[in-house]
Amino acid sequence: MVVLDKMGSFFVGGRRVRVSGKPTRRVAYSSNVVTEYDPNGTFVVEPAYVQYFLPQQPRFRTPLVLVHGGGLTGAQWEDTPDGRPGWVARLLEARIAVYVIDNVERGRAGWCAIEGEWPDLPVVRSDEEAARFYRFGFAGNQFPIDCMDKLSAQTVPRWPSTYPLQVAALDAVVERIGPAILIGFSQGGGLSFIVADRQRKRVKACVGLEPHGLPTTYANGIPRTPALMILGDYIAEDDYWRDMAKRGQESMDAWRGAGGRAQVWDLPVLGQRGNTHMMMMDRNSDILCGMLIEWLDQCFRAGDFN
Amino acid sequence: MVVLDKMGSFFVGGRRVRVSGKPTRRVAYSSNVVTEYDPNGTFVVEPAYVQYFLPQQPRFRTPLVLVHGGGLTGAQWEDTPDGRPGWVARLLEARIAVYVIDNVERGRAGWCAIEGEWPDLPVVRSDEEAARFYRFGFAGNQFPIDCMDKLSAQTVPRWPSTYPLQVAALDAVVERIGPAILIGFSQGGGLSFIVADRQRKRVKACVGLEPHGLPTTYANGIPRTPALMILGDYIAEDDYWRDMAKRGQESMDAWRGAGGRAQVWDLPVLGQRGNTHMMMMDRNSDILCGMLIEWLDQCFRAGDFN
Repeated sequence: MVVLDKMGSFFVGGRRVRVSGKPTRRVAYSSNVVTEYDPNGTFVVEPAYVQYFLPQQPRFRTPLVLVHGGGLTGAQWEDTPDGRPGWVARLLEARIAVYVIDNVERGRAGWCAIEGEWPDLPVVRSDEEAARFYRFGFAGNQFPIDCMDKLSAQTVPRWPSTYPLQVAALDAVVERIGPAILIGFSQGGGLSFIVADRQRKRVKACVGLEPHGLPTTYANGIPRTPALMILGDYIAEDDYWRDMAKRGQESMDAWRGAGGRAQVWDLPVLGQRGNTHMMMMDRNSDILCGMLIEWLDQCFRAGDFN
Repeated sequence: MVVLDKMGSFFVGGRRVRVSGKPTRRVAYSSNVVTEYDPNGTFVVEPAYVQYFLPQQPRFRTPLVLVHGGGLTGAQWEDTPDGRPGWVARLLEARIAVYVIDNVERGRAGWCAIEGEWPDLPVVRSDEEAARFYRFGFAGNQFPIDCMDKLSAQTVPRWPSTYPLQVAALDAVVERIGPAILIGFSQGGGLSFIVADRQRKRVKACVGLEPHGLPTTYANGIPRTPALMILGDYIAEDDYWRDMAKRGQESMDAWRGAGGRAQVWDLPVLGQRGNTHMMMMDRNSDILCGMLIEWLDQCFRAGDFN
């Protein structure tokens, strides 16, 4: 059961673009509606979309912000590919306030279709690359591989060039929400730590799930903020993932060196075997969410946030 | 307050595409992550995304399916541009089960970036076209025009060619959900009546909010299903909207002639003045949602659905 005091969404950030001098063209919207389309005018591009769910009697006041990975949207935190409740539902059942973002260009945030505004072409991850990149090839892995179609269906195009826009948008989200806890996955993990560093008074805890693109240095003065990096199984099997874990460890050390606290969870060492990169979709997703909630409870009891 | 028994999302429909023989290219994901991108492989394209919220003690069992308009996503039913709760929150407060779709190519459903799969270029509505098309120019209109940025931010690219894909996806959504009530806005209104016609046993009521692309004929045998078309203000001021209303009236007459029941609400006649095309975002959105709930209650009491 989920009891909400408030739910809804808003858009944050973005900029106005003015287009002029382009030719109109005829467009058929359906067999009987054909109009002259004018691509000129003003547009708002590059906002982030934020959907929020605020429980009535929150476990603690500070909300989570869930930051999706590359080529994915906020949908990745909802039902798992095999149709079980995902982390959003589980966190709300635990009475934790949740903000789910679709960052710039993804999902409901929309993307900029105005020619010349973005320098690069979009890329989309194939099932084959996903299976390799997400470590689905190992015996005993926890991803419901027979439901690959459902992961594939939620994979969306991405533009590598928009990274700085996504940093700025997440920054604006945290400014708007106020004190918050960032939970970022993969690309979203890097984004979360970059913004945690920029918003030291507002970000009360930061969690990276196999984060990519973490900073490796932080200026002194992080106010004891707890950080957590969570790593799945099979990391040692591949240079790419060994590098990710090594950089992550460097980042956590630097975070600690700058005044923060930091932990790394090596899930197999903690008894959770077989986790792929998509840990919030793996068969043991409920157990992992429970572990995360326990960690948040500890931080709350330690006075890290209200 | 919203009390939910279950919430989550799923993806429906779509097809597998196999890409081969395309060259790889170098892509920089961030300053320090540069990889060789391979556009070949298998992909799932053209699904619909469905987010659902199921109240614990539903007012009636049959859920609503909210079908967004062209160039918009499911976000249009959430908070209004001026930051008030939208229809999703209001319907859930009234304990009505709600499924919100992002149809093919929109929002979290993602769009097909594979070259050559879709024949046309995307179009995006400018603020100027929106203001004209949505009838924001009339004195006393209810749209919070000082919040135009927030409508602009949620406006996304669309492909005119995907209409048949969207019909097929909404069809698949109704097949998956079972008995349902369709509420479609603008382009989504036409889609809703097309699918209501195809799914006569499953669609228990159908509402078009200033619907576009309505059928004007229906084969006999609609099982007394109630239909409702809602029209805002200033319709008589413009050929385009007069045509929409005229076609809508023809469609409601045809629906009735084929065995269904049908009503048309002319909002100014019912005392609601100043409504634009974006009636769920207008200042009187709560009043309109209340009128809709009352209509649904009447249908429920009449035994149209459980």
